[in-house]
This record gives sequence, structure tokens and C-alpha cells, in this order.
Amino acid sequence: MSSERIIYLPLGGAGEIGMNAYVYGYGKPGKERLILVDLGVTFPDMDSTPGVDLILPDMAWLKERRDRLEAIFITHAHEDHVGAIGHYWNELGAPVYAREFTAHIARLKMDDHGISPQTVKTVAAWPETVEAGPFKVGFVPISHSIPESSGLVIDTPKGRLVHTGDFKIDETPLVGEAFDREMWSDLAKPGVKALICDSTNVFSAHPGRSEATVGPEIEGLVRDAAGMVVATTFASNVARVKTLAEAGERAGRSVCLLGRAMRRMIEASLKTGVLKDFPQTISPEEAAQLPRENLMLIVTGSQGERRAASAQLARGKYNGMVMKEGDLFLFSSKTIPGNERGVIRIMNQFSEQGVDVVDDSSGLYHVSGHANRPDIETMHALVAPQVVIPMHGEHRHLREHVKLAETHGRKGMLAVNGMMIDLSGNTPSVAEYIETGRTYLDGTVKIGAMDGVVRDRIRMAMNGHVIVTVILDEDDDMLGEPWCDTMGLPEMGRSNAPLVDALEEDLSQFIGRAGAKVVTNDDKLEEGLRRVARQTTLNEIGKKPEVSVIISRLA
Amino acid sequence: MSSERIIYLPLGGAGEIGMNAYVYGYGKPGKERLILVDLGVTFPDMDSTPGVDLILPDMAWLKERRDRLEAIFITHAHEDHVGAIGHYWNELGAPVYAREFTAHIARLKMDDHGISPQTVKTVAAWPETVEAGPFKVGFVPISHSIPESSGLVIDTPKGRLVHTGDFKIDETPLVGEAFDREMWSDLAKPGVKALICDSTNVFSAHPGRSEATVGPEIEGLVRDAAGMVVATTFASNVARVKTLAEAGERAGRSVCLLGRAMRRMIEASLKTGVLKDFPQTISPEEAAQLPRENLMLIVTGSQGERRAASAQLARGKYNGMVMKEGDLFLFSSKTIPGNERGVIRIMNQFSEQGVDVVDDSSGLYHVSGHANRPDIETMHALVAPQVVIPMHGEHRHLREHVKLAETHGRKGMLAVNGMMIDLSGNTPSVAEYIETGRTYLDGTVKIGAMDGVVRDRIRMAMNGHVIVTVILDEDDDMLGEPWCDTMGLPEMGRSNAPLVDALEEDLSQFIGRAGAKVVTNDDKLEEGLRRVARQTTLNEIGKKPEVSVIISRLA
Repeated sequence: MSSERIIYLPLGGAGEIGMNAYVYGYGKPGKERLILVDLGVTFPDMDSTPGVDLILPDMAWLKERRDRLEAIFITHAHEDHVGAIGHYWNELGAPVYAREFTAHIARLKMDDHGISPQTVKTVAAWPETVEAGPFKVGFVPISHSIPESSGLVIDTPKGRLVHTGDFKIDETPLVGEAFDREMWSDLAKPGVKALICDSTNVFSAHPGRSEATVGPEIEGLVRDAAGMVVATTFASNVARVKTLAEAGERAGRSVCLLGRAMRRMIEASLKTGVLKDFPQTISPEEAAQLPRENLMLIVTGSQGERRAASAQLARGKYNGMVMKEGDLFLFSSKTIPGNERGVIRIMNQFSEQGVDVVDDSSGLYHVSGHANRPDIETMHALVAPQVVIPMHGEHRHLREHVKLAETHGRKGMLAVNGMMIDLSGNTPSVAEYIETGRTYLDGTVKIGAMDGVVRDRIRMAMNGHVIVTVILDEDDDMLGEPWCDTMGLPEMGRSNAPLVDALEEDLSQFIGRAGAKVVTNDDKLEEGLRRVARQTTLNEIGKKPEVSVIISRLA
Repeated sequence: MSSERIIYLPLGGAGEIGMNAYVYGYGKPGKERLILVDLGVTFPDMDSTPGVDLILPDMAWLKERRDRLEAIFITHAHEDHVGAIGHYWNELGAPVYAREFTAHIARLKMDDHGISPQTVKTVAAWPETVEAGPFKVGFVPISHSIPESSGLVIDTPKGRLVHTGDFKIDETPLVGEAFDREMWSDLAKPGVKALICDSTNVFSAHPGRSEATVGPEIEGLVRDAAGMVVATTFASNVARVKTLAEAGERAGRSVCLLGRAMRRMIEASLKTGVLKDFPQTISPEEAAQLPRENLMLIVTGSQGERRAASAQLARGKYNGMVMKEGDLFLFSSKTIPGNERGVIRIMNQFSEQGVDVVDDSSGLYHVSGHANRPDIETMHALVAPQVVIPMHGEHRHLREHVKLAETHGRKGMLAVNGMMIDLSGNTPSVAEYIETGRTYLDGTVKIGAMDGVVRDRIRMAMNGHVIVTVILDEDDDMLGEPWCDTMGLPEMGRSNAPLVDALEEDLSQFIGRAGAKVVTNDDKLEEGLRRVARQTTLNEIGKKPEVSVIISRLA
């Protein structure tokens, strides 16, 4: 029986940075036993997803095959890897495996959805493994920007796969395990069929820098500051939060953490033991009693999020703390593309307060958590796989990563979301194309990205909304006049009269002229009214609005 | 009589990059004769201004004083300096002065609004000057990224002001006048009261690079390319377009310009003589007949604009041209903050087509048109003013620019939009705060940024829109049931029934329960219906929508 095959099917993360969800399978075609690696979210923006709360990978394919799903493995506790677990677990139902810190975070997610924490199993690091159907999976410690990140060794009856998860090569990461070259080269010794590898920083040509390089720079900055120092970074970057706090402490300042996510993450790190020591912190109330030059705040909101501590400080006040002339604000973080406007808004608000802002542009106060090009090459060389399959990247990153592999004479395979790859033979091939996409969490409801709901919202935002109401009696005669209301449209039109007056007049004339065929037929009447409303609005204010027509017929 | 004063009042551009509009005045307080320098626009975005066509400075203050406005001076032909001239000229009515190329562009803008081209007067360069009331104004050639950019020497009876306009210090700009140190130092000899100075690149610490450095790099890139090369830059960056075309020609390729703005700008440059020679170009039809490796396209859309040539090529086709595997796309441009998403979208679309994308990240294929920090310092030193007043920048740029001036022992004054500065004495002071803001061109209508129209559109985009219709007869009894329609909201709610059904049921119950006091009072009834509609939607789908209530009473 050699008809079993190994499959790889990204459902999220291969074609975007975020929303990771990778399926692996082993078995006879169409009957493979499956595991899922990571189940993350990505974040909405006003351009394409206004009002959406979260973006999840479309799990329809896997839900239909939940009887074949053996387990879910979470590589690390970043939202784009674990954030969707609570939203989907009831529909997938397989046990979730993660190392202790990640499992702790995953259980909090489960709890948010009323799901038992026992769905999440804590796993020790490689060389221990978990059996899941035909798979044996081990969590190999790897350096990244959150504690206990892991790559996965995925053993199948037909050979070994290595899935890096997010990683960088950092031999002095400050928190968590250093990158262990020997362990990585050892695990490759039996031979690796495929390396499924992080692509985020493939365009960064310079060698990556260790977390350890950041501390002394930040300490110098804090030491030279005359007023209060406020620093922001991702709350989940526990090593950086520690670096910041220690720099503050060494510079003789009391440290205060602001923002719920920041405090929660440090508590989780201490509780799970990934953080052994952390400078003593003070409460905002205690901070308010101290001279500013003795204070260092570490706050949430490095991406300019409007409700985070940094944005609130920029607008005025947070937890009783206020920024003043001569204070310093440090972005110990990179602005994710798309978030520039929010971050710049904050910078200008601080500038208005007389606060000096220091950002990442010098390269001194932040290092990335992802492997740059040379470190990706190192990983390829260490694992020496038969084929490199780039993941976690936009199309351009995946493509560049394939080219990079090929430069060194390796096989590379570009697989985007929905491409099922057969890894059984010596050369991987596309087995099937699966329809995938995105699911929006909108309020409390999951909707498909293609459902048209968000498209309608974007249209209202671009074009405004006109509502037309008409009441007809049993003889199809109009009762009163058509009534119009507008939202999001200028009040006065070209004829220097209110737009609604012009609309009501034109609509009234239209109904007056319309024959019985139109007036007795809801569809035709609605179509006619919509057309007139759009044309009048166009004439009056030069915009083609969305139009809702409500026809009431009194029986 | 020594009560005359010199005033400076930015109405746009001091607190943002874009939308430049600076008023200068001379005379007795409240009776100053005025001139306006530049009248530009800025561009909307989905985050804060969805559906808006253009953003203009609020000119209310100046319109009320149009009898005191002597003239309008345009420093150069970029949209953020000249783009609003046609939109406001009828309300301001003063003669417009510009050098030939700028005047040509300004006249096209006037023509778009049916305004006579004779409103725009062509002026020769310094040392010629224009008299405008108490002012004498000269256009001093200065290097930037569009032909015939000028700084202004503004002489008043109480001394000289220098307004740089946008500039860089480029002694080999390829197109247009080289920066002339001697001329700038000469014009400062009589003493300069104030230097009003471009701040855009104040955070760029490295010395600026000349346009001349870009050509050889681009030529090498084009020469090495195997397939078609497509390059984009701002159409108005005539020097760069020429650099690109010549690089293509030297690499043995035929050059084709794509995009209306690109062709218009080159035609204007040739017509006005600022461009003396330009490689021969071919039409898209001719291009389609040539082997790809012999072709270079120069196209519009460096900022990812959806309707520009680059975005259309990324989506598939433009003017019959299609990109193919092995082609090269070059961004000879910087992505303006806020435009990253659009640019990245294009990059990924090209990646899907197998097209290699080269961007600005190497620093080889683009140089900025603005003075970096060292060049700003050079300008300060050359002009040696009594005070430096930064303009053209966000608050953080203006503040940093003041600090830079102070570092060198100069006086700096931070003046944002609406701050009227008295420049008469030895130390400038704030004379008055003027209410200013932004005006939106929305379709064909100008609306105030604070009118609430755009805020309503954003709310609909975030929250969706529910429309409630109720018909009451002469006895205040409901005719039929309340009728609901939604737009931009999920169809099915928590109770697994259509959201509109849940809404109609709850609204019906509300009216049934409501007493006569509510039902007979439109305001109370509307308020109650809105509250119920929001609550039901919140229960069903977890969102609080915008609600329009339409109550029809049959007389």
C-alpha cells in the first residue's frame, strides 16, 4: 500500500502576513488524517473592512472534515497564530497542543468563549513529541519576539517535515531560549522532506540583530532624558518590555506599566515562569506622586490604536497620567504598513504637547522578531530540506523566498492559501485548489468577506445614503408626497435649496408621470425611484448615492 | 505713523504636508493689505475622509477680506500649492502671478472652472519683481522636483521676508535651474526679517542627493532587465521622467508614456520650454508591436492610486499593455505615509504575475525633492534671517525645525494654521488666533470638515444603517407593522432569524406598549424607535447601528 500521501494546505498566512492556519494531512487521497498548525486572526482597516472586528481565515474546508482532524498545534501566542482558536474551536473540536506559555494564552481565549480550558494541552519541548493520528509532532524552541515560540518537527510515515513558525536567529534573546544551532542541525539529520518557513523579512538584506543590542541604547536614551520617559512596544514582546523596564530601573527610575494587555502579558509570563525576574513596578497612583524625571512608563499602543494607552496619552490623559513639555516618548517598535496614519497622528499630538518623540528610524531602539534574509539562508542550510515552502508572507514575500532558495540550488515551491500540495514524492506538486477566503467577525456574527455586507458599508461611506419612502393606498394612489431622508450627504444642493426638497420634487413628478404598469409593480416603481433619486443627487451635488426605497402599500 | 505692521498668517500647510496657503499683510492692524502665497489642496483618505474628492484650506477669513487682497503668488505647480486656485478664484478675485510653467498649469485649472486664463499673469524670475500694494515680490529660482519652482523675496516697507516654497539644494538638477548659492546669499545682503522655510525633510539627517545621481543607477537596472521595464514616478517630476526616458533610450529601448497626467505634464514642459529635449516616445499601439525586451514604459500611479496606469497594469491591462513573467516594475518614488496599503497591493499583484518589483528601499532609484536637515541648515546660513518660521510640515516637523534653528543660535517661531504672527518688531509675536480648518470638496459641493456629513458616512461604514418606517393614521393608530430595512449589516442574527424580522417584532411591540404621549409626539416616538432598533441590533448581532426613523402621518 503506497497510495498514502502527505499534503500541505495553507488556509491562511500564505498570501498575507497574519491569519496563520496551515493544514497537514497524511493518508489515502481524500481520506488523509489532518492536523492544523496555528489558527490566527488578522486585523481590519478602514480602507477595506470598516466596522469589522476581526478577520479570521475561512475554515469551511476543515469544518466539513472535522472528523478527520486529529489535533491543533499552536506555535506561539501571537494573535495572528492563536487569536481565532476561541472563535472556531466549537466547530473544529480537536485537542489543542501548545507549550506552557502559549497554552496559558490559548486557555484565556477559550475562556472568553465559554470553552473548557481542558481543550488545551500543555506540551514539553522537543525531543518530546505528541502523537496525533499518523503524525508525531515536536515543539522545537526557537527565538522570536514572544516567549516559548516553537518550530514544529512533524514526522509522518513517509518522512519528516519542519515548520519553523515565526522565528529569528537570536543567540542572546534575553527572555526565553536562545537559538540552538546544534539542535536544529541535529533534527535535520534523518533528512527533511520539506521546510515550511517564515518569509516576513525576506526583503531585509542585512543580518538580524539580537534583542541584547537594544538594552544599552535604550538605557542611554532614558538616562539622558530630562522629564518623564514613556515607551511603547507590543505587549506580547515580553523580552522588550523587560529590556525597557530594566533600562528604566538602571537609569534610576520607577517603572509603571499602563494598559491592560501590558499588565496581563507580564503577569502571564511570571505565572508560567518564562519570566524569572522583572523590575518592581509601581501603580499609576504611586507614579502620580513621583517627580517626572524619576518615572518611566511602559504603555500599550505602539501601532497608534485609538483606544490604547499611547493614543489616550496623546489626546490628554490616561489613568491620571498626563504628558508635559520636556517628556520623551519612545516607539520601541516598527510601524506595521497600513498603521502609519495612526502612529503619525500620535506623534503630532505629542509634538503639540511639547513632548519629544523618538522612533525606530535610527534602528537603535528596536529589532525585528523575524529572520532577515541571511538568517533565512542559515535556516535553509541547517535544515537542508528537499524543498523549501515559504509561508507567513504576502505573495511578494513568498515569491522572493522561493527565488532565494533557488539561488542556493534548493527546490522552492510557492504555495498560496488554498493550494493543496502533495509532498509525497521527490518533487512536490499541486494536488488540488481549495476555495478559501476570509471570514469577518462583525459584532458577534461571522460573515463571509464576499457577502456584500462590508461592500455596502464602504459604498455608503463613499457615496452617502438616500432613503425614499412612498405610501400608496389600495387604489395605487400616492398618499401625500414621497418622503426623503439622507445620511452622509451635503444638505444644500446646486439649486441652493435643500437636497431633500429637490429630491422630493423630482420623485413626486416621476410618480405623477409614471403609468399604472410602474406604480402597481413594486420592482419597477423601486427601480424608477432609485434612478430618479440618483440622478437628482448627481445633478444637485455631483454624487451618486446609495438609495434605499421603501414602498408601503396600505391594504 | 509707525503703526503699520507686517503679518504672516498660514491658512494651510502649517500643521500638515499639503494644502499650502500663506497670507502676508502690511498696514495698520485690521487694515493690512494682503497677498496670498500658494493655494493648494490635500488628498482625502478612507480613514478620515471617505468619499471626499479633495481637501481645500478653509478660506473664510480671506474671503471676508477679499477687498484687501492684492495678489496671489504661486511658487510652483504641485497640486498642494496650486490645486485649489480654480476652486476659490471666483471668491477671492485677485490677480494670480507665477512663472511661465506654473502659470501654464494654473491656467489649465482656471479653464476647468470656466475662468479666464487672463487671471493668471506670467512673471519673469528675480531680480524682476511684481508690485502688489505695499509689497514687492520676486520669484527666485530654486531646485525642487518640478520645473521652475521658486522661492519668493517679499519686500515690505519694513523689511524683507524670504519664503522658500518647497525646495532642495541641488546644483545638478538636470531639468530647470540649479541651486544658485550666490544669488541666495546676495538677496540676503540687505538683511532678512524672516525666513519662512520648507520643513518636510527636517527629520532626514543625511545630506540630500542630486537628481543627477539617479540616472546612472536606473540605466544599469534597465540594461540588466530581461523583459519589459515599467517605471513609475510623479508625473510632475519632469526631471525624473526625463531621467527615466533617457535611461531607457541609452539602454536601447523604445520609450512609451502611459497615463494622461504623464503625457500632459511632458507636453506642458516642452511647450513652455522648461524641457528642451526629451527622447522620442512611441504610442501604446506601436509599443504593442515591439519585443518586450526593447520596451520601457513610464507610467502614472506611484502612490498606488486605483485608477492610475500602474494599478490597472497590476490588475491586468492598460491601453492594451499587459505585464508578463520576467518583466520589471520600478517605483522611482517614495511612498507617501498613508499610501502604503495601495502600493503594497500593487506589488503583490505584480508578484502574482511573476513581475519583479524594485522600490525605493535601496535608495538608488529615487531622491527627494525636499531639503534634508543639512540643506535646511545651509539655507538658514545663506539667508541669515532674524527669525526662522517653519512652514510646510506637520506639527512635529515645524517643532523640530524650530529646534534646529535654535541649535544654531537663531530665533525660531512655531506658527501653525490660524496663528497670525506680527513680524514688525525684532521679535515676532502672536497677534491673533484665526479660526481655520478644512473645506471638503464633496462631489461638486464645498462642505466644512466639521459639518458632520463625513462623520455620518464614517459612522455608517463602521456601524451599518437601519431604516425604520412607521405609518400612523389620523387617530395615531399604526397602519400595518413597522417596516425595517438595513444596509451594511449581517442578514442573520443570533436568534437565527433575519435581523429585520427581529427588529420589526421588537418595534411593533414597542409601539403597542407606548402610550399616547409617545405615539402622538414625533420626537419621542422617533427617539423610542431608535433606541429599540439599536438595542435589538446589539442583541442580535452585537453592533450599534446608525438608525434613520421615518414616521409618516396620514392627515
